[in-house]
Amino acid sequence: MSTKQKIEEGSEFIPKFDANGLITAVATDAVTGQVLMVAYMNREALDLTIRTGYATYFSRSRRKLWKKGEESGHFQRVEQILVDCDQDCLILKVAVDAGQCHVGYQSCFYRVLEKGSDKKLKFIAEKTYDPEETYKKQI
Amino acid sequence: MSTKQKIEEGSEFIPKFDANGLITAVATDAVTGQVLMVAYMNREALDLTIRTGYATYFSRSRRKLWKKGEESGHFQRVEQILVDCDQDCLILKVAVDAGQCHVGYQSCFYRVLEKGSDKKLKFIAEKTYDPEETYKKQI
Repeated sequence: MSTKQKIEEGSEFIPKFDANGLITAVATDAVTGQVLMVAYMNREALDLTIRTGYATYFSRSRRKLWKKGEESGHFQRVEQILVDCDQDCLILKVAVDAGQCHVGYQSCFYRVLEKGSDKKLKFIAEKTYDPEETYKKQI
Repeated sequence: MSTKQKIEEGSEFIPKFDANGLITAVATDAVTGQVLMVAYMNREALDLTIRTGYATYFSRSRRKLWKKGEESGHFQRVEQILVDCDQDCLILKVAVDAGQCHVGYQSCFYRVLEKGSDKKLKFIAEKTYDPEETYKKQI
């Protein structure tokens, strides 16, 4: 079995981290399937996620581990971790409460590009919580 | 309105490309919502996707534009493009035929990490087409 076959057709989890030591992780709602957010993990974040059962990411802007919900209380309990063909991307199926995006929406993907435009966004969701209330300790 | 507010709360599409000039794109099945694959776009790939209505990515390994389906025939007709809060990630809701992953599955995410393990993957899908048949021109 070639390395490529082992990665693509094998049963061994061999996550591939990029040049910055990160792997992309897509969090989806375990119940509805909705894509909630896309974030990144380093090896330590992935290990913590597997070990604790709660999603931990690596914040590229803050350069540190970030247990989702540590400030907002909106934790992600991981039910399943899926990996893609070349093992450089993960899906986390997570159990969540209302409001996963720091802007106040359930999903970070609350806007859609309007048909026929390459500039104009349309809002497709309502806020599910007040982020100022949630994050007021930080404001 | 601050730049952050403009990006997060505004109606202008201002996609943010990373240091390599790429933005992450998650393709989901427009009918079922299933996550099919995660790939990357540069500005040109995104423009082509918007203009043609068919998903075009930038292949990081081959360092070139890649219209999904150009070899396999498994094109992705884009129904909607969503953008996340900080505008550095897209979801493409796409209409597809059977078999989006080059390994032969409908989704690239055909394996799940077994409960209690950090090493063992379990297959959760059946192949929907024979990639050797599809890609035989290239083999």
